[in-house]
Amino acid sequence: MRLRLLSTLFIFQLLSQPMLAGNDDSLMISNIFNYALVNGACYQNLEYMCYTIGPRLSGSNASEEAIRWTRELMESYDFDRVYLQEVMVPVWERGQVEVACLFTSDGSRKLQLNMTALGNNVGTGPGGIQGKVVEIKDLEELEILGREHIEGNIVFINKPMDPGQVNTSRAYSHTAGIRYRGPEQASRYGATGVVVRSLTTRLDDVPHTGSTSYSIEDPPAPSIAISTRDADRLSELLREDPGTQLFFETHSRMLEDKVSYNVIGEIKGTTYPDEYIVVGGHLDSWDVGHGAHDDGAGCMHAVEALRILKSLDYKPKRTIRVVLFTNEENGLRGGRSYAEFVAEKGEKHIAAIESDSGGFTPRGFSMDGTDEAYAIFLGWAPLFYHYRINEFIKGGGGADIGPLKKHGTTLIGFRPDSQRYFKYHHSAEDTFDKVDERELEMGAAAITSLVYLIDRYGLD
Amino acid sequence: MRLRLLSTLFIFQLLSQPMLAGNDDSLMISNIFNYALVNGACYQNLEYMCYTIGPRLSGSNASEEAIRWTRELMESYDFDRVYLQEVMVPVWERGQVEVACLFTSDGSRKLQLNMTALGNNVGTGPGGIQGKVVEIKDLEELEILGREHIEGNIVFINKPMDPGQVNTSRAYSHTAGIRYRGPEQASRYGATGVVVRSLTTRLDDVPHTGSTSYSIEDPPAPSIAISTRDADRLSELLREDPGTQLFFETHSRMLEDKVSYNVIGEIKGTTYPDEYIVVGGHLDSWDVGHGAHDDGAGCMHAVEALRILKSLDYKPKRTIRVVLFTNEENGLRGGRSYAEFVAEKGEKHIAAIESDSGGFTPRGFSMDGTDEAYAIFLGWAPLFYHYRINEFIKGGGGADIGPLKKHGTTLIGFRPDSQRYFKYHHSAEDTFDKVDERELEMGAAAITSLVYLIDRYGLD
Repeated sequence: MRLRLLSTLFIFQLLSQPMLAGNDDSLMISNIFNYALVNGACYQNLEYMCYTIGPRLSGSNASEEAIRWTRELMESYDFDRVYLQEVMVPVWERGQVEVACLFTSDGSRKLQLNMTALGNNVGTGPGGIQGKVVEIKDLEELEILGREHIEGNIVFINKPMDPGQVNTSRAYSHTAGIRYRGPEQASRYGATGVVVRSLTTRLDDVPHTGSTSYSIEDPPAPSIAISTRDADRLSELLREDPGTQLFFETHSRMLEDKVSYNVIGEIKGTTYPDEYIVVGGHLDSWDVGHGAHDDGAGCMHAVEALRILKSLDYKPKRTIRVVLFTNEENGLRGGRSYAEFVAEKGEKHIAAIESDSGGFTPRGFSMDGTDEAYAIFLGWAPLFYHYRINEFIKGGGGADIGPLKKHGTTLIGFRPDSQRYFKYHHSAEDTFDKVDERELEMGAAAITSLVYLIDRYGLD
Repeated sequence: MRLRLLSTLFIFQLLSQPMLAGNDDSLMISNIFNYALVNGACYQNLEYMCYTIGPRLSGSNASEEAIRWTRELMESYDFDRVYLQEVMVPVWERGQVEVACLFTSDGSRKLQLNMTALGNNVGTGPGGIQGKVVEIKDLEELEILGREHIEGNIVFINKPMDPGQVNTSRAYSHTAGIRYRGPEQASRYGATGVVVRSLTTRLDDVPHTGSTSYSIEDPPAPSIAISTRDADRLSELLREDPGTQLFFETHSRMLEDKVSYNVIGEIKGTTYPDEYIVVGGHLDSWDVGHGAHDDGAGCMHAVEALRILKSLDYKPKRTIRVVLFTNEENGLRGGRSYAEFVAEKGEKHIAAIESDSGGFTPRGFSMDGTDEAYAIFLGWAPLFYHYRINEFIKGGGGADIGPLKKHGTTLIGFRPDSQRYFKYHHSAEDTFDKVDERELEMGAAAITSLVYLIDRYGLD
């Protein structure tokens, strides 16, 4: 039934004017891609953000510097309006010390582990914790084992991301619960500590951090992630020697909330200035690596979209707004506050596009909206085929723009090639040298082209 | 007319049995991808080839080692037959010394250039050459300028690869003539030396080598490539100071032809053992970098295709043959000899697939064959969509398999994502660390899947 509706709409779309995208759109999109590939600024801007500012967990000094610099950058591009929106954010500090190792039950062997504390997690403090290890393959096993097997022990959640999944984001979403909910759930059964297998498609020595669920009243047990190779090693050792003990010490802690900001830049619409199209990424990153793909790339994509349209002297009908969200990684306060801010002002947001899947070769977009909007979106797809962009699917928009859904905004997620993303994601490997210039600039071109089409034709 | 024919064939394809690829094909392809992503061996094999054997210009000791090792590798996989085909190859040596610099006309400034001698080129020898520089933007300008402006000077061919082209292979093919034919053509007008702008989509400091046309009777003037940033610098300097002199010294030379080998491995067909499907890459590489993407990746793809089919216990109807060609880079003798060998033996080659565009995320295949074969190929395309592989276009197969065309073989080129290829191509940057494991293994899965379909259904 839905299919039938869609194809009817699709045919309507093909036959109707002026919604039918034509030759002038092809030309405009060709100009956008050419401009991005020849005169793009994403790559050099990202280089500055990665090397000069560095990783920028919300609330950190580097995060403040990133806010100041991106504001200045957009001002230097002479957008119509550039401003900050105040947001209170949680502040988490990793602390100087984090270390983990194994001891065989006879004390004869000690094995250092590649590890990282999980974000928002309150550490063990000096002295660390040590205990027997209970390995589980998924969270359901907690209930099966029950408190009698878990209490007083360290729970090791060893669920691998499926490397056979071609869509790595899907593999991630099937596994991310072990990190986000695992420590909290294991704590309820009396675990003294939690160790999770890093969420990555690779078998290597790189630990990957990320948020874990946290509440002030009932903080979960200290938790860490270990590299996938170490997870395999630990699992093997536990089979041979179930008495293996694990020690870890982390000094991470939560501090008082602090003022941070979403950074906003816009070009005013000429015909419908009160209709908004948002394009965004999140400015905060984890405190390891550079936050290059996650999500420096997305921020630079968003700023570049406005810069390209302005450089090509395009006068948008609607107001086009860049939003660089704060605190996506460990609180999502930027995205939530932005949606409240929009509701308070009664601003009509027709669409929001988020780039938060890295700066890889663009493959398409996913849309979370009405069937009508999706049919219009599908009608534009052929304009992108020349650029090898051909995934126009139904799917999520992005974490930061998610809260806009209840205000009727069509959400769109930028989808670059996903094969390399989780190799770097939330790890010390997510550095600028992993970004390819052409891939990054092409991403900006793809997003700019879609912003242009939404501005020109709307989504209803 | 052609379109009409194609759509008729396509509909025929959709309706007919057993050519219609069905659920069991989906399952087989799913098994292939899963096997490649979970148990793939391309990456570890390529690591060995890159780090232990290294670059392997045909005729070099490393090339002999690569021939020996890949033969052993295929034997270790227990293919039905593994053997060598003798091929005489040209032997080019870079020599120890290569250096280039500029002098301003007043002698006050000297500027070192990032350079590399062009392949097959006979060097200046000790002492080098020095002269005034005549810059041209393309080869046509040679005739316009004529001998009076060129004789006794160094010609600088400064034609950039168009970075605005999304299809980087196309940008390369529009520019490669300056390197291949430029030195020979400029020599006819009396140039004492030739400098070409490196063929790359980037503006950077990396020089890119590659073949230049060469004849024993009338060797062209010594020629080098300089990095794109140096090409821009030289061009600017020449505008400011047309008396700028260039010096370069290269010790490269051609030696006597030598015996080399194509390395061949095959699994015998059960039903049509006398029909062959070839899958190949070239084993030789330039003498800089590792030859990782060009074309270590392609060789590992080809070997892996057979290994995967064998591991999945697939018994091919036709004989499937891996060919690792020698001497693609500076002579194409491996590809030419292979076609002669096939003709002599009267072997029926129904299809040949070449992987020589790097180990990046697979995007599709190009086919050089009959309309009928293309229609069948298009009919298989939907089986690949789940893996984000959706380019099934008409186009070239590959340099090594090209000579099979006159024997009626359908040629197929593997097309991975092309955005990063020319950043590394023919340069010291083409090293193993530029290869992503998942991308590489997925390429093997794509090629294996196509080999399976051709084996099962044929192409006519």
